[in-house]
Amino acid sequence: MQLRIPGPTPCPQEVLQAMSRQMINHRGKAFGDMINRITPKLKNLFQTKNDLFILTGSGTGGMEAAIVNVLSPGDKVLAASNGVFGDRFADIAEAYGAEVTRLKFEWGKPVDPDAVRNALKADSKIKAVLVTQNETSTGVTSDLEAVSAAINEFDKLILVDAISGLGCIDLKTDAWKCDVVVTGSQKGWMVPPGLAMVSVSERAWKAHAQAKMPRYYWDFTKAKNYLEKGQTPWTPCVSVFFALDVSLDMMLKEGLANVFARHARLADMTRSGVKSLGLSLFAADEKYASNTVTAVNALPNMNVSKLQQILRDEYKVVLAGGQGSLSGKIFRIGHLGWVTEADIKETLDALGKAVPQSKS
Amino acid sequence: MQLRIPGPTPCPQEVLQAMSRQMINHRGKAFGDMINRITPKLKNLFQTKNDLFILTGSGTGGMEAAIVNVLSPGDKVLAASNGVFGDRFADIAEAYGAEVTRLKFEWGKPVDPDAVRNALKADSKIKAVLVTQNETSTGVTSDLEAVSAAINEFDKLILVDAISGLGCIDLKTDAWKCDVVVTGSQKGWMVPPGLAMVSVSERAWKAHAQAKMPRYYWDFTKAKNYLEKGQTPWTPCVSVFFALDVSLDMMLKEGLANVFARHARLADMTRSGVKSLGLSLFAADEKYASNTVTAVNALPNMNVSKLQQILRDEYKVVLAGGQGSLSGKIFRIGHLGWVTEADIKETLDALGKAVPQSKS
Repeated sequence: MQLRIPGPTPCPQEVLQAMSRQMINHRGKAFGDMINRITPKLKNLFQTKNDLFILTGSGTGGMEAAIVNVLSPGDKVLAASNGVFGDRFADIAEAYGAEVTRLKFEWGKPVDPDAVRNALKADSKIKAVLVTQNETSTGVTSDLEAVSAAINEFDKLILVDAISGLGCIDLKTDAWKCDVVVTGSQKGWMVPPGLAMVSVSERAWKAHAQAKMPRYYWDFTKAKNYLEKGQTPWTPCVSVFFALDVSLDMMLKEGLANVFARHARLADMTRSGVKSLGLSLFAADEKYASNTVTAVNALPNMNVSKLQQILRDEYKVVLAGGQGSLSGKIFRIGHLGWVTEADIKETLDALGKAVPQSKS
Repeated sequence: MQLRIPGPTPCPQEVLQAMSRQMINHRGKAFGDMINRITPKLKNLFQTKNDLFILTGSGTGGMEAAIVNVLSPGDKVLAASNGVFGDRFADIAEAYGAEVTRLKFEWGKPVDPDAVRNALKADSKIKAVLVTQNETSTGVTSDLEAVSAAINEFDKLILVDAISGLGCIDLKTDAWKCDVVVTGSQKGWMVPPGLAMVSVSERAWKAHAQAKMPRYYWDFTKAKNYLEKGQTPWTPCVSVFFALDVSLDMMLKEGLANVFARHARLADMTRSGVKSLGLSLFAADEKYASNTVTAVNALPNMNVSKLQQILRDEYKVVLAGGQGSLSGKIFRIGHLGWVTEADIKETLDALGKAVPQSKS
């Protein structure tokens, strides 16, 4: 089966084997050694010297952690959104009482650094900006370096949903001064879902000391205190730690630059292949088309559910549909994590056969 | 290795094999079929017809979910606590702005139903009672049937931390009118950590409709809406679902009454064995000693860390130490989930050899 959705992604055999390891004491030496091995490897791939915590939960839990740890109810927050996940980030902040200004960009387009700059100029009381590196719902990667630079002109907190981009697409956490960066294990990391990983800058710690949003499970202070003992505050998803320990070694062996280049190459191959089938990309400008997920416009007479079903049942290829208002209008091909040229070729071959069969 | 801590517990081979299954689409039919198989099996073991949700997180996340979904800041809450986890439940409620009255019981003793009744009589404004079925930190099981009966005289919400008891010790969710019951996958369920399971009564849903504590990730309405589609709101810890699907079949095949009887038998064997070594139970009254974890008083000249180290290094038996103020004063033997007479015999034999070696 070709699982070509933007997460969970397929896992290499070595990773799956690690998942089947017997349990250990999460308050013992073996776990401590493991978290003390994994954390620096992740920091390397986050390109950061900041604190980094591994939380048991989905990526959305990591987004919630980012917000509740550095903000207070009533804080003004600018949410730059160009899709489902940008909206989600804003929704979480609102659920916890932030005063959210939504800076919306047309779906299919990236976040515009100038618009962010203007919004920050217009309201000096904004304390933090929420931004999505790679918008999974539309297959668009924003220029986070430029967006961060715009925000850094104003010394605001930058909270980044990098769930489906980090480890696949360049993100220089420290160089770009990103304060909290969130990712999830089931994306580029080649392991099953169950862990959210977050980095926390000095500036974020200062905000944390004042932050009044209620929190317990996701609290960074608790995570820090326990990490000093080689532990997590609550029983962690041990099996995904085993898996991550293996997959991070694979990523480091390949080298981060090579991992990025592979994702760029396979994304390019996917986009070319899709276009050669007479299909078009949802991304308005191919320059911002994502290297981890390609969103493809449905043909006028195409039934997307039928296409997915034919691909799954006849060709053993699983693609994702559109989310929210894009349901039925696009389909999405995941090409992140453990993916090769052969996988993309197989996917495109199947797509070429299935498209003519998928008329509504 | 005998992993005899109160979670994570060892997993049967079939369960570990399930953990190594390749990823699937969490928004596809195979996952939907699986969650629609697992949910009724869990309801059976929770002895409930209530809604039941499987959340990706630790047990503590499930406790947070119980609180934030049914309460509002300022609500009066009675927290009956006889250990670390009872205190934690109270701490979570306080972190989210509840006005918590702490009804504390001496550690080693159970929650006293009469004291709960008196506390509810004394303050008619209390809206909910937090109670721990099985206090993992002290190895004490309260008489939840009697405690619930006392609470039900007043028509208050009953939120139960059943993390280390459910599936091992009888808990009749519906018959005892428990409104939210929380457990965690790494306890009696014989699977790795990563999932919290919670049941939600009609009365809890009514409270939920009015509840104002901020929530997003743990929100029961979102869980319910997605479960109707055979999904979870956020990417779930798929591997532990695979594992749970297998382990629940094992539990149902054994039969709930037999599972309870096995835990009672092995706990009795543990307690007898410990006493025959000249050690004493931390539980003040053996009638309330837990059938899932036995807390043992350290001898006056015993170094608990040394005991644990000798057991681990020389005899391949892993025991837990004491938590919080009990650190160094007790050690704990887990006997829940996948455990047999042979396991307990091996553990007790090792303990008999290690105790004389563990003088401080």
